[in-house]
Amino acid sequence: MVRPDTLLVEVNEGASVAGVFTKNDFAAAPVIVSKKHLLRGDTRYLLVNSGNANACNGEAGMAAAIRSCASVAEIGGVAEGQVLPFSTGVIGQPLPVEKIERVLPEAFSLLSEASWKEAATAIMTTDTRPKGASEEFEWDGEKISVTGIAKGAGMIKPNMGTMLAYIATDAVVAPALLEQLLKEVVDQSFNRITIDGDTSTNDSCILIATGQAGHPMLMDSGSDLYLRLKEAIAKVCKSLAIEMVRDGEGVTKCVQIVVENASSTKECLSVAYAIAHSPLVKTALFASDPNWGRIIAAIGNAGLKGLDINQVRVWLDDVLLFEGGSCAASYTEEAGAAVVAKSEFAIKVDLARGHCADTVWTSDLSHDYVKINAEYRT
Amino acid sequence: MVRPDTLLVEVNEGASVAGVFTKNDFAAAPVIVSKKHLLRGDTRYLLVNSGNANACNGEAGMAAAIRSCASVAEIGGVAEGQVLPFSTGVIGQPLPVEKIERVLPEAFSLLSEASWKEAATAIMTTDTRPKGASEEFEWDGEKISVTGIAKGAGMIKPNMGTMLAYIATDAVVAPALLEQLLKEVVDQSFNRITIDGDTSTNDSCILIATGQAGHPMLMDSGSDLYLRLKEAIAKVCKSLAIEMVRDGEGVTKCVQIVVENASSTKECLSVAYAIAHSPLVKTALFASDPNWGRIIAAIGNAGLKGLDINQVRVWLDDVLLFEGGSCAASYTEEAGAAVVAKSEFAIKVDLARGHCADTVWTSDLSHDYVKINAEYRT
Repeated sequence: MVRPDTLLVEVNEGASVAGVFTKNDFAAAPVIVSKKHLLRGDTRYLLVNSGNANACNGEAGMAAAIRSCASVAEIGGVAEGQVLPFSTGVIGQPLPVEKIERVLPEAFSLLSEASWKEAATAIMTTDTRPKGASEEFEWDGEKISVTGIAKGAGMIKPNMGTMLAYIATDAVVAPALLEQLLKEVVDQSFNRITIDGDTSTNDSCILIATGQAGHPMLMDSGSDLYLRLKEAIAKVCKSLAIEMVRDGEGVTKCVQIVVENASSTKECLSVAYAIAHSPLVKTALFASDPNWGRIIAAIGNAGLKGLDINQVRVWLDDVLLFEGGSCAASYTEEAGAAVVAKSEFAIKVDLARGHCADTVWTSDLSHDYVKINAEYRT
Repeated sequence: MVRPDTLLVEVNEGASVAGVFTKNDFAAAPVIVSKKHLLRGDTRYLLVNSGNANACNGEAGMAAAIRSCASVAEIGGVAEGQVLPFSTGVIGQPLPVEKIERVLPEAFSLLSEASWKEAATAIMTTDTRPKGASEEFEWDGEKISVTGIAKGAGMIKPNMGTMLAYIATDAVVAPALLEQLLKEVVDQSFNRITIDGDTSTNDSCILIATGQAGHPMLMDSGSDLYLRLKEAIAKVCKSLAIEMVRDGEGVTKCVQIVVENASSTKECLSVAYAIAHSPLVKTALFASDPNWGRIIAAIGNAGLKGLDINQVRVWLDDVLLFEGGSCAASYTEEAGAAVVAKSEFAIKVDLARGHCADTVWTSDLSHDYVKINAEYRT
């Protein structure tokens, strides 16, 4: 199943497969091919290579992605369209298809020795550790499980960062419902994290429902089993997403940004991302400096219409730091410093102008982020 | 006129004064007070302190800003509303008005020894050098001059970064026309630079027309003299703006991003800022790495509707690097590397979907940016 830099995953016949992909205009060739092949509804193999993104390679890139599918299809005895290709790595370099083809026989011979951990390792680029998560629950006396792996690191932001994530469950789910489930779950997990605000050309997230469990096929979103399954998949995705932030390039802090009482979800996200993407906030986080002025300035840059700054309140975990247009009377530098000294904490913003809330996870901006990204070529 | 950290500028009676200010929702107290006082149309003094932003200080901050104006007014024998206050520095710390008041007598006694260079030095925070620029031209046998000073550094982005800029000309200009001129000129200079995408709570730009030249008062934007004056002021502002980027926190590169043949100015700026704000692009610039995949990925994240990626062309100075959806056939790594090795160069993007063009100046993201911002408290 696994070779360093190349991962082949076999999908059982009859499984349902759903995918969500980058919204970058320069989506890589494998993204375009995977989206097209997914439409057939009979995916049998996933082929992942890391080190080369096969993005911005024009028609040669498309041809290379299709050829890699054809090579897998030939050995596997399936149609080219039943293979989904994925690539991650450097943009604008020709994909070395021959190298991938050379290792395919071995990849096929290892298919039975499936190991999620090895798979998670194979897809790493600048990740420092493999990322996996599992959940299981009982239904009607039967155990149903969900397992996922992901690679992340830099270029992480809403609408998919440079991330590849593969999640599988043995539940039996109709394809259309699976796609809806994946979209909803991704929106609250992978689309809620940001490290540097960059969205890559290759991000893909695939959810496979093998259908090997014994329950009747899930057809609509109303059933209790569906809700239990969605909850388990959401947990796995959220866990993988937060793990991506923790292992982001040069990351020393994983910070949850909660925006409450906004008038819309869009407003929540504008404020959360204004904070999460501010290099001044991020460098202060790196310095463990409770420099709240930078947080307030970032909120003020979110572009909200008619914000009443006297109603805004801001906390570091449970420490109130801002209210009534200035530093909270109860706030002490010691209390703030104790929170930001931790490797994980929350910045909470109450806008007091509505009833929407949302959460984003982000990281600090460290010396190592600059070092890694000045030296590594994506 | 000058003391370290405190600058007092006297404006002659009858001068026209115009200002533009930050759009941050948490605009500092001095910004709110300056905007209000400017409306009187009879400004006589500018008082600038650096080191403390007097932002997010609630009513106490407003009271401190007004008190500093009153103190200047008392010594100068003018009304409180004839003084404009400006502050730059740490957010959320009480403004030490007494300290400012203590140095006012000396500041008044030095008013006659006006030195632009000392003034430019007094307003520095993390700037490494004072910033000034001058232009002059002849009109009807008379010399008309324009001189400006500015402080900049971090938190620089459209709609004013942490910048203070003061420009003066001896031309005679009606106040309403001066305001229009300033807005237009700032939009093409200070509002076209970005270092880290953060907009501060204190940015202000003031243009003074002393009226000491002999020509009749400029009343409308149709005259040749107005166009000459505007050109000179635009040159001074652009020079100060680019100098701010060059002296940005930790900056080693000053890069011009030109977007051409877009369908709107908004589209130009979306693409230019997507490139300028991408930490991945910025770290590659710091590394002098012609990592064009990151530039392309940033363009793809600009959110343009229906972008035909096969029509997009990208250059590094005169070196074509991308066309037809992939790396240009003529492009060589050596040619690209030679451009990005320079400390100043241009990234040019042709979108081939309209007739608008615009330019933004930005910097790289270096180890020193992180160091300065992790250690300095704004």
